[in-house]
Amino acid sequence: MENFVFYNPVKILFGKGQIANIAAEIPTDAKILITYGGGSIKANGVYDQVKSALTGRNVFEFGGIEPNPHLETLLQAVELVRQEGIDFLLAVGGGSVVDGTKFIAAAVPFVGDPWDILAKQAPVTAAVPFGAVLTLPATGSEMNTNSVVTKWETKEKLFFASPLVFPRFSVLDPETTFSLPPRQIGNGIVDAYTHVMEQYLTYSVNAPLQDRWAESILKTLIEEGPKTLANPTDYDARANLVWAATLALNGLIGAGVPQDWATHMIGHELTALHGLDHAQTLAIVLPSTLSIRRDRKWQKLLQYAERVWNIVDGSEEERVNEAIAKTRNFFESVGVRTRLSDYGVGLETIPLVVENLQKHGLANLGEHKDVDSQVVEQILTLSA
Amino acid sequence: MENFVFYNPVKILFGKGQIANIAAEIPTDAKILITYGGGSIKANGVYDQVKSALTGRNVFEFGGIEPNPHLETLLQAVELVRQEGIDFLLAVGGGSVVDGTKFIAAAVPFVGDPWDILAKQAPVTAAVPFGAVLTLPATGSEMNTNSVVTKWETKEKLFFASPLVFPRFSVLDPETTFSLPPRQIGNGIVDAYTHVMEQYLTYSVNAPLQDRWAESILKTLIEEGPKTLANPTDYDARANLVWAATLALNGLIGAGVPQDWATHMIGHELTALHGLDHAQTLAIVLPSTLSIRRDRKWQKLLQYAERVWNIVDGSEEERVNEAIAKTRNFFESVGVRTRLSDYGVGLETIPLVVENLQKHGLANLGEHKDVDSQVVEQILTLSA
Repeated sequence: MENFVFYNPVKILFGKGQIANIAAEIPTDAKILITYGGGSIKANGVYDQVKSALTGRNVFEFGGIEPNPHLETLLQAVELVRQEGIDFLLAVGGGSVVDGTKFIAAAVPFVGDPWDILAKQAPVTAAVPFGAVLTLPATGSEMNTNSVVTKWETKEKLFFASPLVFPRFSVLDPETTFSLPPRQIGNGIVDAYTHVMEQYLTYSVNAPLQDRWAESILKTLIEEGPKTLANPTDYDARANLVWAATLALNGLIGAGVPQDWATHMIGHELTALHGLDHAQTLAIVLPSTLSIRRDRKWQKLLQYAERVWNIVDGSEEERVNEAIAKTRNFFESVGVRTRLSDYGVGLETIPLVVENLQKHGLANLGEHKDVDSQVVEQILTLSA
Repeated sequence: MENFVFYNPVKILFGKGQIANIAAEIPTDAKILITYGGGSIKANGVYDQVKSALTGRNVFEFGGIEPNPHLETLLQAVELVRQEGIDFLLAVGGGSVVDGTKFIAAAVPFVGDPWDILAKQAPVTAAVPFGAVLTLPATGSEMNTNSVVTKWETKEKLFFASPLVFPRFSVLDPETTFSLPPRQIGNGIVDAYTHVMEQYLTYSVNAPLQDRWAESILKTLIEEGPKTLANPTDYDARANLVWAATLALNGLIGAGVPQDWATHMIGHELTALHGLDHAQTLAIVLPSTLSIRRDRKWQKLLQYAERVWNIVDGSEEERVNEAIAKTRNFFESVGVRTRLSDYGVGLETIPLVVENLQKHGLANLGEHKDVDSQVVEQILTLSA
């Protein structure tokens, strides 16, 4: 096992009716800004639950945060927070709203151009405290330090992380997700699955507990994903998906083991260039990455085949091929297509992706830092 | 899945050489009290590493904290902290030192008799901040809010918990545990294993991820336990034991599921009455509890048999019996005997245990609160 530091102070309030308990988690004298997205929270009752829980509190609102939240939009919220002296943020929505709120939290006290937090990885030294009410199981943002923001003007999708943008608390009430369309649930399953794979499907460092915990999440997603798609109001199936998605990226399964993340970095460029959903890009890139990098991931692919997919017959090559095929089929089975052509994207995107990765300082990816331009080209060619 | 709140802000510094990093985790102007036990940290180099890391800092020392830490000893430390205006504690040792330091932390600002924190469950409203350098993998105290203290005068072993006594940080360097005698490693394996069983071996509430994470820890202990006993300086095997023991009781696998804890409560009384090691009492009580409560735990016992012990043949009753027998054999195999008679304790202890449980408000134990005096008698009789 490798040395590691693990720290995650997010308080999770999980289950039915937990929104009612948020007032106790926010300082009584706080000026609160509720941040949200396109307004689905007003249709599904979550907005009303939040407003009711905050009755008598000093509450402002900022709606309209997009999927793949736009810098340009978030900067308007930063302006509002500064003007009004708001001192607590409450993100109500999915991963994009939470990610966007993390950026707002860090940008408010930032001196200079806040885009530098992402473009130049300028250090975050302060942040407005915030909590989250999660309405979409997928990104894990509700229990980690990560944020991804898109600069719409230049079509750049970049990442930052800081322990200062851990949510103080996150409410996960599976019932608030019942009304999500199948596309978003399918996306969430693929996103969570890929988060686990980025931390698991590398090479062994003799960390059997981390391996088993990763495999446990994958198996739970494989079992519960189809159930919750078939019956969106099955509370337990949805609850199991929600908790699996959170634990897929809260730092635990990645503690003390190597991590990959090539699929995510390539995927971000595809979203920035073509507007694909985040999970769509992962479904396109992950199976090809596993195929192209099979030599360096061989032993872990065999372990994955056996433990996650119960593949024990055939040659090693046959087992590896079957495991990768089953991964692709699983993504397709939850409604997320796995080919560039499924989204009308041609191979002419490849030089653009390669160029943008280089521009963003991401020319050498993966657990061995050897996924270079040539390998990215191979991966995307296989994803055609 | 049941509703739950999960919160665990302990920062874990895991791996070789991590003691060198503690200074950055303690306020520079702190008056620090190092608490420790019988002095093994002076023999194995941990004391020197800690002192070296804290060079130039204002450091006091308090040694002599016993296994099953004594109230009478801890109160001396409370006095010292108050007199000297010490404002940060650093527990260096095993679970008893960490548990004892939690009590010291809570007792210092407590108004009244600090024993009330345990005997009357008086609320903890403040605590001195503290960190831990763990030298014995077993109790999980390094990453939770729990503390068990023994009043030597009256032979009472009682429990308290408070979010105010989370360690600020815990260092887990597996190399610091290499010199532990086999008895303590065996005890640690049994303690961690039983912590998992208390949170897992109850009844299903459709929480498959919690189940699999629990089974993952059990399987890791079964695999890595014998390895680390056979070769105490095998870094990876010891590291896997250390991390498994911490995650066995940091709140995660118990979130959203019913919990038992009858074995622990009965075991505490046996330690208080007869001075047995904590893990020895668990090894005595757990197999009998599983046997006596088999009807109420039936489905989970079958799942445990199949997933943890790969028992798939035979009738349901045969599988349950074999799983319980394998549990007992595993404890014996790591050097912890599983019968009262192995420790020279006769059945005359039973009425004393029953009486003390009643006195401590623990007359109805287990996940259904139906482990009453009669059931405790059955369990201990089977443990003869």
